[in-house]
Amino acid sequence: MHIGILGTGDVARTLGTALRAKGHDVWLGSRAPDHPKATAWAVDGGGTDTFAEVAGRSELLLNCTSGLHSLTALELAGRDALAGKILVDVANPLDFSNGFPPTLSVCNDDSLGERIQRTHPELRVVKALNTVANALMVDPDRIAGPKSLPICGNDAEAKARVAGWLGEWFGWTDIVDLGDITNARGMEAWLLLWTRLYGALGTGDFHMAIVR
Amino acid sequence: MHIGILGTGDVARTLGTALRAKGHDVWLGSRAPDHPKATAWAVDGGGTDTFAEVAGRSELLLNCTSGLHSLTALELAGRDALAGKILVDVANPLDFSNGFPPTLSVCNDDSLGERIQRTHPELRVVKALNTVANALMVDPDRIAGPKSLPICGNDAEAKARVAGWLGEWFGWTDIVDLGDITNARGMEAWLLLWTRLYGALGTGDFHMAIVR
Repeated sequence: MHIGILGTGDVARTLGTALRAKGHDVWLGSRAPDHPKATAWAVDGGGTDTFAEVAGRSELLLNCTSGLHSLTALELAGRDALAGKILVDVANPLDFSNGFPPTLSVCNDDSLGERIQRTHPELRVVKALNTVANALMVDPDRIAGPKSLPICGNDAEAKARVAGWLGEWFGWTDIVDLGDITNARGMEAWLLLWTRLYGALGTGDFHMAIVR
Repeated sequence: MHIGILGTGDVARTLGTALRAKGHDVWLGSRAPDHPKATAWAVDGGGTDTFAEVAGRSELLLNCTSGLHSLTALELAGRDALAGKILVDVANPLDFSNGFPPTLSVCNDDSLGERIQRTHPELRVVKALNTVANALMVDPDRIAGPKSLPICGNDAEAKARVAGWLGEWFGWTDIVDLGDITNARGMEAWLLLWTRLYGALGTGDFHMAIVR
């Protein structure tokens, strides 16, 4: 599959490397076509280009930009390049301007996932993977025991396809569909607890399991 | 132990019944000394009285009021009755005024737990048990498998005592100390996800496990 990843940070490159290893044609998108981290990453395969070029050539998009800049990245990508495509929204609207733990730039009565879907009705937004550290996104079973992955979005077929891919590519099995994209409020609010668990445990190497 | 529970709702009565069964002298506090639900509950033991009377006679307090009314309840209890006591803050600032799922009346850069501790420096506030449905608070092992209970507060000795009691009384073993009371922001924000899991699963009969 032609997969476009918006962003060049740790999450983008971790997902990109894992998907490239599965045989996909993966490109990383950024503001400039020659972003140093993306260029270095693409030496081993795939490619890198602007948000617009990467979005235009891809069948599936993953939003791995910083949540504070996601709407800008999508605006730069342009509606024509996004139209009709599934966007897996991995981002969190974390604001570190007052240090750690961060606050959320939007929460409680709105969410980044909703803002993206409202601003880009031409996209089929599926919120997923934002609840777990990047090393666990692509290899959940590196920690034994139960683990759960919430997911939400307005488009049932897009959610079903994403859930299938997350199982097929990475081995996720307990994917909990919360419903429409407004449920991103809950998935993003988890970061207010996740960051504090990270602080207390001294690692992001933990899963949330919904045991029932 | 003489235990005072502020509140008369489901959480208050579930905890009260479980603690009464362990041989504790449990009283439920409310605005009026003759609250019908509390009076009916006290037929089987313990008692009921005003917030002030219940707080004054108790060695340990549990805040099981609605989070929107907790500060009023504590004001009615009065500083003299609260001074030096451990308050286990079980409440969540859930605002159902726009239906389900609720929003939080405070979150992200503040929390109910912090507000209680700031307003009542004479209390030793330990946030605990707010992350789980009441039937599981007092019987976590009714669901098999791992389960975790975050806890936070400024007073290390108070936290250690509360963690010990939660183990001794109810069988909680994986109690995760997040640090000071500002971490209540994370524990209360969990309700934004918990309520949506409740909606999706159709039950509150589930645990959060931090698998690591």
